[in-house]
Amino acid sequence: MKRISVACALLYVAAIAVSLRAQQPSSDGPQFVNGNELVRPVNYREWPCVGSSLGLSYLQGAGTQSAPPFTSVFVNPSSYRAFLQSGQWPDHTILVLEIRRSATAASPLTAGQYPTELGGLEAHVKDSRLPGGWAFFNWGPVRSMKASAAPIPQDASIQGEGTCVDCHVTHGAVERTFVQFYPQLMDVARAKGTVKAGFR
Amino acid sequence: MKRISVACALLYVAAIAVSLRAQQPSSDGPQFVNGNELVRPVNYREWPCVGSSLGLSYLQGAGTQSAPPFTSVFVNPSSYRAFLQSGQWPDHTILVLEIRRSATAASPLTAGQYPTELGGLEAHVKDSRLPGGWAFFNWGPVRSMKASAAPIPQDASIQGEGTCVDCHVTHGAVERTFVQFYPQLMDVARAKGTVKAGFR
Repeated sequence: MKRISVACALLYVAAIAVSLRAQQPSSDGPQFVNGNELVRPVNYREWPCVGSSLGLSYLQGAGTQSAPPFTSVFVNPSSYRAFLQSGQWPDHTILVLEIRRSATAASPLTAGQYPTELGGLEAHVKDSRLPGGWAFFNWGPVRSMKASAAPIPQDASIQGEGTCVDCHVTHGAVERTFVQFYPQLMDVARAKGTVKAGFR
Repeated sequence: MKRISVACALLYVAAIAVSLRAQQPSSDGPQFVNGNELVRPVNYREWPCVGSSLGLSYLQGAGTQSAPPFTSVFVNPSSYRAFLQSGQWPDHTILVLEIRRSATAASPLTAGQYPTELGGLEAHVKDSRLPGGWAFFNWGPVRSMKASAAPIPQDASIQGEGTCVDCHVTHGAVERTFVQFYPQLMDVARAKGTVKAGFR
């Protein structure tokens, strides 16, 4: 009798544990090591891709590139679903920017451009522990890509065109992100009224 | 004693059921109604996006479009994972082609193109019940998009450029699919030796 009760109790605990595991969302947000080094997610290509673009640039002369980069942005699934509900990014959101080279279509095709080999991998993270609540990360060159990366300094800029942070704060349609280039999410943000005041 | 045994047996069955449910892949493949009408998946944007492209076309004069379409291909998650393992598509694979209009970046950006409003939604399905094992589907114009669609006839062609099927059979890098435009999967296909003989 006692043995049966113990077995029963163990089974009950096991059933609850399995049930909880099946119900809880997986922890798919940003993972850090050594304090604030962001771990490069290995499975980001299974995450929702919220937007792709060809040759988007804020640098003078960028329009003359013969093979502009093809970029895609992937978001951790739970934050993507939260955005669909609220039009805003929850804390612990990670957006991964994948940069690839591009090629022009050849025969039998007559036109078009598509992505080819990987050129780089960066991230934008929302985490209340970070200064301003957000930070950018870059895991470095493809051939020596790091497993984790420290935040890019808040005052970093590219070719003296102003800081990354200022541009995202000023021109991002929602919070610090360029949702204007993520058409499905832009529709959500308009419907939820979360597009920044003054954004045109 | 008998009551405890019955409760124990029920708990045991419940534990097995929950455990099986947690382990089994969800049924994310193509769903049909009325025989062979493909149901339009509502959550395809949560599926892995295997490739995007701008203005890919096989029609003469396509290169002169001022706003070429932006296309992205999404695959049901279990088939995507199977491809990563084998370099081939399992039976019951659905590839969704999302077609959007494109826009050219404006200030503060200096260059680039990105996708805007939805222009159409098509699919390519591998299912052993279909003639030849594959079929194309088109849910129709955006403003009157159907919830399900019958297969496009096997002899369909666009502007007399040969049939869709022939082109995919002849020019697809893997089976009937244009994996040559899905860079991550093309690397997998090369590693697994599943690129068609004769494909260059």
